[in-house]
Amino acid sequence: MAVYTEIGDDDLRGFIALYDIGEVLSCKGIAEGVENSNFLLTTERGNFILTLYEKRVARGDLPFFIALMDHLAHHGVACPTPVRARDGEALRELCGRPAAIVTFLNGMWPRRIEPFHCAALGAALARLHCAGASFAMTRPNDLGVAGWRPLYEACAGRIDGFLPGLGGELGEELALFESSWPRDLPQGVVHADLFPDNVFFRDHELSGLIDFYFACTDFLAYDIAVCLNAWCFEPDLSFNVTKARLLVGHYRAERKLDAAELAALPILARGSALRFLLTRLYDWLNQPAGALVRPKDPLEYVKKLRFHRGIADPSWYGIDAGGG
Amino acid sequence: MAVYTEIGDDDLRGFIALYDIGEVLSCKGIAEGVENSNFLLTTERGNFILTLYEKRVARGDLPFFIALMDHLAHHGVACPTPVRARDGEALRELCGRPAAIVTFLNGMWPRRIEPFHCAALGAALARLHCAGASFAMTRPNDLGVAGWRPLYEACAGRIDGFLPGLGGELGEELALFESSWPRDLPQGVVHADLFPDNVFFRDHELSGLIDFYFACTDFLAYDIAVCLNAWCFEPDLSFNVTKARLLVGHYRAERKLDAAELAALPILARGSALRFLLTRLYDWLNQPAGALVRPKDPLEYVKKLRFHRGIADPSWYGIDAGGG
Repeated sequence: MAVYTEIGDDDLRGFIALYDIGEVLSCKGIAEGVENSNFLLTTERGNFILTLYEKRVARGDLPFFIALMDHLAHHGVACPTPVRARDGEALRELCGRPAAIVTFLNGMWPRRIEPFHCAALGAALARLHCAGASFAMTRPNDLGVAGWRPLYEACAGRIDGFLPGLGGELGEELALFESSWPRDLPQGVVHADLFPDNVFFRDHELSGLIDFYFACTDFLAYDIAVCLNAWCFEPDLSFNVTKARLLVGHYRAERKLDAAELAALPILARGSALRFLLTRLYDWLNQPAGALVRPKDPLEYVKKLRFHRGIADPSWYGIDAGGG
Repeated sequence: MAVYTEIGDDDLRGFIALYDIGEVLSCKGIAEGVENSNFLLTTERGNFILTLYEKRVARGDLPFFIALMDHLAHHGVACPTPVRARDGEALRELCGRPAAIVTFLNGMWPRRIEPFHCAALGAALARLHCAGASFAMTRPNDLGVAGWRPLYEACAGRIDGFLPGLGGELGEELALFESSWPRDLPQGVVHADLFPDNVFFRDHELSGLIDFYFACTDFLAYDIAVCLNAWCFEPDLSFNVTKARLLVGHYRAERKLDAAELAALPILARGSALRFLLTRLYDWLNQPAGALVRPKDPLEYVKKLRFHRGIADPSWYGIDAGGG
């Protein structure tokens, strides 16, 4: 949770006056989002989210994120829609930072994952991938295989201090992925960070997806792998095959998976576990004094990585390995 | 900023079902309030604030706070109104903590104080005091003179480490207040913490007062003294007599100040400076590791305390010292 920048009331009124959204009634920093400062903005027209992009998000990437949300929202994906000011611009500046207003999505993210959440997630993810097929812009995945070694090197000498032997273990994983990461799987726009706190539900209905600030162009099946890690392990880190089967099954009802994608799921899930492990490890080892955000425990992803290492084929996830 | 407790979506739905406020559409932790966990709750009926009371607020005091907000809201003070559940209760339990829903107040607190803010504040404070006159409950001020020595003792050995010589200086102040704090001034319900972040404005209009969790029974003029400290110093800690004159002048237009109250303002302001200095010093010297809240700098209140020590009579604040 984080609000890194405080907005002066005069600055805010001047900013909002550029939009056709009525007078500001309230603007409160919200304790969500680790990368940016987010405010729940209430105007005469209702609730909106105002985001100030802090330095962890590259300015050059913002037009991609804004255009993507705009594209998806106009292609039937329930996600925040950037609100344009009167001059047509959705990406502006406030308090010296890039800033955007997006529509407010109703719903809450699930704290306790149940199987129905995974079913709805799978369908929504496939629809996101299908809607993204007509999106023209691309963005490389900074946190794809090529981005893992720099993270690893930045931590390398200190990894064993976190968990003895882990440095060598991760070095071997990394070498494996660098040599045998899949090629030629279907690519497109992926969310790349679809954890439960980015998926809103109203009762049993999925009401929207948020936080597209890791979105990029990568294997579509990689997004499924991220979700297997983020949604299908129980709190005790046992793997729930019912959830995985529902997630992948409902995905396939909306978008076919070919045999190569299915076969790649174990290595993609293992690689995705390393990706989150490395960023968590980096944040863990580089906590600034007085930080407002507690880093997430890397150990969870050590265990997930080891789990996937033992998977011979996708049927072990409870997934029907037949194509289609 | 703080959200100390995370509410499960199932728990929340069960809780909200006890009220007549429609279905929950959203519930986001907000980065305001140091003592409690606050959530901006959106339901089919609009926005509300849901507060979970954390351990710094004594459970036994909650009925006083809830009844006070209820009383004031029904006597013309713009402040959060506790929302009663269907059984008539406003104070309930959620996630093992006392919890209440209050109405949402439009407005924003001013980041840069201008004279008109002080004028509106003075009038609102007087109206709060008048409305409180018919409130039957009482609550002693835990952070009144009698509460300062325990705080001082808890810090004593370490104060000079913060600022050399400050320990002795504060000891002398404390002894002075203990011997010559005013008696017999008009008493009633005071807010006792009316800092700018507790006062909302819409443009030039004061739209409401929030955060009554230090409210208690004390000298009404003590509230003015708190406001002189919180609103009338510039960022460079020079004292702005125009702001003080507007604050007290607009107060007196709504509620007369007698000669004893006026004469007491310098010592009340000096004592109020010590009160905030001691709590800030205590928090500064007792920062828990990994705290989510950065303590406020005590030095600001050292300087304010010293300023008031040099004040001979209220005319030095720019205040007309005649009674009435």
